[in-house]
Amino acid sequence: MVRNSLGRWIPESFDGKPLVPYADPYSLRPNRQRATRALRRVNPQDVKLLSGGLREAIEASGLKDGMCISTHHHLRNGDALLGRVVREIDALGLRGIRIGSSSVHPVHAELIPFIEKGVIAGFECGVNGPIGEQASRGEIKCPIWVRTHGGRARSIIDGEVRVDVAFIAAPACDLYGNMSGASGPSACGSLGYAHTDAEYAGCVVAVTDNLVPYPVAPFSIAQSLVDYVVEVENLGDPSKIVSTTTRITTDPVGLQIARYAADVIAASGLLKDGFSFQTGSGGTSLAVADQVRRMMREGKIKGSFGCGGITGYFVDMLEEGLFDVLFDVQCFDLRAVDSIGRNRNHLEISADMYANPFNAGAVVNRLDCVILGATEVDVNFNVNVNTESNGYLLHNTGGHSDTAAGAKLSIIVAPSIRGRLPIVRDEVTTITTPGETIDVIVTERGIAVNEKHPELKKELLRRKVPVKDIGQLHKEITQVTGTPRPLEFEDEIVALIEYRDGTIIDAVRRVKE
Amino acid sequence: MVRNSLGRWIPESFDGKPLVPYADPYSLRPNRQRATRALRRVNPQDVKLLSGGLREAIEASGLKDGMCISTHHHLRNGDALLGRVVREIDALGLRGIRIGSSSVHPVHAELIPFIEKGVIAGFECGVNGPIGEQASRGEIKCPIWVRTHGGRARSIIDGEVRVDVAFIAAPACDLYGNMSGASGPSACGSLGYAHTDAEYAGCVVAVTDNLVPYPVAPFSIAQSLVDYVVEVENLGDPSKIVSTTTRITTDPVGLQIARYAADVIAASGLLKDGFSFQTGSGGTSLAVADQVRRMMREGKIKGSFGCGGITGYFVDMLEEGLFDVLFDVQCFDLRAVDSIGRNRNHLEISADMYANPFNAGAVVNRLDCVILGATEVDVNFNVNVNTESNGYLLHNTGGHSDTAAGAKLSIIVAPSIRGRLPIVRDEVTTITTPGETIDVIVTERGIAVNEKHPELKKELLRRKVPVKDIGQLHKEITQVTGTPRPLEFEDEIVALIEYRDGTIIDAVRRVKE
Repeated sequence: MVRNSLGRWIPESFDGKPLVPYADPYSLRPNRQRATRALRRVNPQDVKLLSGGLREAIEASGLKDGMCISTHHHLRNGDALLGRVVREIDALGLRGIRIGSSSVHPVHAELIPFIEKGVIAGFECGVNGPIGEQASRGEIKCPIWVRTHGGRARSIIDGEVRVDVAFIAAPACDLYGNMSGASGPSACGSLGYAHTDAEYAGCVVAVTDNLVPYPVAPFSIAQSLVDYVVEVENLGDPSKIVSTTTRITTDPVGLQIARYAADVIAASGLLKDGFSFQTGSGGTSLAVADQVRRMMREGKIKGSFGCGGITGYFVDMLEEGLFDVLFDVQCFDLRAVDSIGRNRNHLEISADMYANPFNAGAVVNRLDCVILGATEVDVNFNVNVNTESNGYLLHNTGGHSDTAAGAKLSIIVAPSIRGRLPIVRDEVTTITTPGETIDVIVTERGIAVNEKHPELKKELLRRKVPVKDIGQLHKEITQVTGTPRPLEFEDEIVALIEYRDGTIIDAVRRVKE
Repeated sequence: MVRNSLGRWIPESFDGKPLVPYADPYSLRPNRQRATRALRRVNPQDVKLLSGGLREAIEASGLKDGMCISTHHHLRNGDALLGRVVREIDALGLRGIRIGSSSVHPVHAELIPFIEKGVIAGFECGVNGPIGEQASRGEIKCPIWVRTHGGRARSIIDGEVRVDVAFIAAPACDLYGNMSGASGPSACGSLGYAHTDAEYAGCVVAVTDNLVPYPVAPFSIAQSLVDYVVEVENLGDPSKIVSTTTRITTDPVGLQIARYAADVIAASGLLKDGFSFQTGSGGTSLAVADQVRRMMREGKIKGSFGCGGITGYFVDMLEEGLFDVLFDVQCFDLRAVDSIGRNRNHLEISADMYANPFNAGAVVNRLDCVILGATEVDVNFNVNVNTESNGYLLHNTGGHSDTAAGAKLSIIVAPSIRGRLPIVRDEVTTITTPGETIDVIVTERGIAVNEKHPELKKELLRRKVPVKDIGQLHKEITQVTGTPRPLEFEDEIVALIEYRDGTIIDAVRRVKE
């Protein structure tokens, strides 16, 4: 065990691999070559469309015991593909398979029996929901590597993770493998997370419930990257593929937080022509977006780009001319799905382009402001989004650490108290995102500004915004909630939280029950 | 020396590299891994826009003696970038540089003094015009590797050629390197040849005369691939960047050839819904396209895609609904440039996707019919487009061999006599494209069908189209022209003709003068 720079105890190895402890957000330089894979040859008479479905594709791919497969999570909690692939793998008698998907959702609780049976040996991705909870409880044994969106792309491109076979759910696909997410019964919009898999996996299988005449156009993933095409009856449950409504909060606490966040943006000096912005799909985040929209209209400000997971709200801002461009790695709702097939400046981008720290410059580097959530923050501005206050691993990181590191102004919005527990802690249960990359924490009880921004703090005070020292804010909140009883953990590590550069920022341990 | 399967004498090595003689179009399977390169890291505060122009970029790139640089040829005979880069390289005292551009045009005769001076040591690309002519005469010493468009992409991706620094002319570019060819004073439309360079070069420099606000959208080449951005006053002479008119021939010989070619397409049975088609920009090719358009209209045929170098003629067919999609690796005229920025189904594709034989399936594999030219054909259907009948290397291969290998029906259109010389020979001066991949040769004096298509031959005869045995056609033509005096060559090899898979299909020798 060694302590990383944030004081977290990190084992020297995990899951058979040596670990590098996290040091800081920016200084690690890669000394590796980009990963490679075997060249192909496909001649004009060769056929890529397999009539034998997923099973034939798995056999054709050469998948063997111990190898790694992937799917993307654009279908989110409606995804039926990952479960189906794992069942076929089981039926073929393969064991010890690693799941290198871009994320896993509660629907994938269906994988738990296959973990118990030894079909699945580990997750090269974070998990949302029951799998993490059961791992946290020690009920299943299955190492989990939690990565950011940019970190996942980085891990595949720098060779840390080798995906042997990528199964790419394709809402529209032709017989030669050109794919798009913009149309079809399982339309999910952007296929941003799947690009890296298509470019780096040992074998690439397009799976579709909507085989259309050649060629799919515009395509997101090109035929020249795709080895096989198979049809399935459906890719998932369309009603769960995208959340159908994303509404601005009506909760007064959320609205107060949004107003304060807007004050911070206004005070930062960033809100001018060329402004770039990212926010999530939560009600408070959208309330901040609504404030920003109002300020942009009033100030006749012409923004540059909105990015990230894209909502209909950002589509409105694009169509209103408040942004020139949307960079979309993932569509959060049906209006975003509709827009990406229609608006020429609503651009699908890969997770690599979005947030990989080891390329020639990701989109997050160009972000002025990002609004992010938290389950906990600590007095050093470190943020936890992975574990809940019960210690269970319940959430994947997403683009949290990536955008925080990239944006000029990263703002955490959170209610000061959640479930009777204080949001600000002496120490967070798990560090997801280092405090050095968090600029401001906004609660309805006050705002804390990272000390690296004395000018911003001064300006906020001048504007009579309730800026407080983070320690003071912590104290005020715990005066209401009391100090929570510390969680107790076993020594056993169930998951690692990998920072975007591949170093280990924290470990998630089994909860003592 | 060994003879390849077409009987051509190939040296065992050239320019310090061992050679593999050509065997056949389809069977060679790559046993290599895809090429790689060093990972980067660009942090938010890093600046990619260099104020010191090309010279600073060359210094920052780490270019050294003996390394390889590239440019693309989308600016064609209007390109000013390659010459400018070479002058800067010379001024910095570098020597032995290899030119790995996608092609070189007559304007690049300006490079000849730098070949003589030792600044340039070789060409990893074919050359159009004076450089090839002077090399053929022995006036300059500079090995030349002629590659097809698909073969060039293949050579970079499979590591045969390593481009150390790519200088990519960007008609629109932002300070972070997002690029598009669709707008700006040097707009050239598709940047299809530059994609592979952006993905594989050791260092990527965007060079622009049109720096626009971030972000360029839609972009062709992404910021995450681009290391530096520099501004220059102009990228070239816009009047020469694209040919301003591409007109259907009015020559009766050309029109007769076009009618016969249309007869062949009609007889082939390929002209039905889903038809895909490629033709060049020459007057006869466009006359064939005009016939095809007429037949599609009359038959109410809905085509699938047009591809290749795209002309305004194909844009009209897209807009008329005769094609669903245009796959555009290169815009041949201003109407194509205009369209690619406007028509959502006019898609830019990389030379890799277009024609690389060693990926998971190129667009050329999906082509029904391609119309191609020739300087000579022989009685075995082998085609020469590289050397003229004087033996001088004057033309690059382009997509000739790629589309011939990919398309179901490849038709050579050529006048039977050109410059008093017969188009059909016992042997061509240089084999560019193997006869096995050529299906039909059309001249105004008659049509020869490759013996692998007896059904097509029968159908053409039934339709009373003047099909002739190739030997007979040869005889009829030489009865008019006489048999040309054989050219005489020295032993010295000035250029190799590389087939798309990297094997050597022919060698170009110094002309005895």
